[in-house]
Amino acid sequence: MTKKTIGIIGGMGPLSTADLFEKIILHTRASCDQDHLRVLIDSNTNIPDRTEAILCGGADPVPELTASARGLERQGAELLLIPCNTAHHFYDAVQASVSVPVLHMIRLTAQALRERGVETAGLLATDGTVQAGVYQRCFEGAGVRLLIPDEAGQRAVMDLAYQGVKAGRWDYDTASARAAMETLLRQGAETLILGCTELPLAMKLYGIDLPVTDPTLELALAAIAQAGAETV
Amino acid sequence: MTKKTIGIIGGMGPLSTADLFEKIILHTRASCDQDHLRVLIDSNTNIPDRTEAILCGGADPVPELTASARGLERQGAELLLIPCNTAHHFYDAVQASVSVPVLHMIRLTAQALRERGVETAGLLATDGTVQAGVYQRCFEGAGVRLLIPDEAGQRAVMDLAYQGVKAGRWDYDTASARAAMETLLRQGAETLILGCTELPLAMKLYGIDLPVTDPTLELALAAIAQAGAETV
Repeated sequence: MTKKTIGIIGGMGPLSTADLFEKIILHTRASCDQDHLRVLIDSNTNIPDRTEAILCGGADPVPELTASARGLERQGAELLLIPCNTAHHFYDAVQASVSVPVLHMIRLTAQALRERGVETAGLLATDGTVQAGVYQRCFEGAGVRLLIPDEAGQRAVMDLAYQGVKAGRWDYDTASARAAMETLLRQGAETLILGCTELPLAMKLYGIDLPVTDPTLELALAAIAQAGAETV
Repeated sequence: MTKKTIGIIGGMGPLSTADLFEKIILHTRASCDQDHLRVLIDSNTNIPDRTEAILCGGADPVPELTASARGLERQGAELLLIPCNTAHHFYDAVQASVSVPVLHMIRLTAQALRERGVETAGLLATDGTVQAGVYQRCFEGAGVRLLIPDEAGQRAVMDLAYQGVKAGRWDYDTASARAAMETLLRQGAETLILGCTELPLAMKLYGIDLPVTDPTLELALAAIAQAGAETV
């Protein structure tokens, strides 16, 4: 079987893009360079902030998102990925702009949790993702109950992504974010969904060790399989 | 000043491409996604093995290298990088195929060592890089003396890159590679040049802590500056 070329609409943020790319490489069965999948990346940092657009009338990210999607398709991508949860609010516009499939990270995560028998999950995501209901819509159908942090907890999660990872502050104080995560677990969450692509990085960088589900990893595994390689 | 878009001709191997991308991100002064440089990547795993081509008459990598270079230029890259030392043997053909500048990782490394006053450096590189004289030519002009491992040491370095990192074996036994490195230092090398882009990964993955110079990092820093951003 001929393997497919993967395209990544990235830059939201750049480190999350690198994280997805690395997860694709590390989870592909390969013993030399040529065994790996071809991956095209547009780390397009001109894409405006997604949460700003959803909540504050900020610049519309759709023109840059679709320009990147079409550019990657023109270069030969046969399968597109968007390593940004909040950007999935604009998924339909991105998918409509190209003729190749765009994998839906949040639907894939809902499906993975349902298959693992998870009944209740905590959602750690940006204000934009939470308030636009991106996860809620996909999880309702999958029959997985979602717990959302309270107002202070939500602020702590948002700050961890923006003031911590996106700002490159490796000495960021994570106490209130940890407290928000532990509250969700006490309320019955079996797993915490790292529903912002900065959060898998945050957990690693700040050494937070809690039961989590990583949508970036679910996306990487689905992409490898759909591109025709074996996962490890 | 308008910032320039960086293009990376990658896939040699994919993890080295991810390493360069991450070094560009982590060394750019930025406090939000939009402060970062736009980076286009073609992790083109169809590029044939460079050492095979130089030493054993393997498939010529130039057609795929130049196809990637032109594809990235068409997509808007204004500055190209090649995160593979051995591929620099084919640098002139790549530069001739596009009208944007292609940074030369090895010349940048020679210049950096000269500026730091290094007189003698050990070269850890693939057989292809060593035998094609890629480093020797650039370092002669810079007045930096190069020490090369003996035959067994060279084999140990080659195996570390191919049987260790490229094959994804995280439990690889690095004893003979370490011995080769320590021999060069005893012979008077002030620093070890990680002259294969798998080697910065190997040092990190296998926890080898010796005085090194990382050409991937030199390339990242030069690219950030030439693209018009500030380095940190």
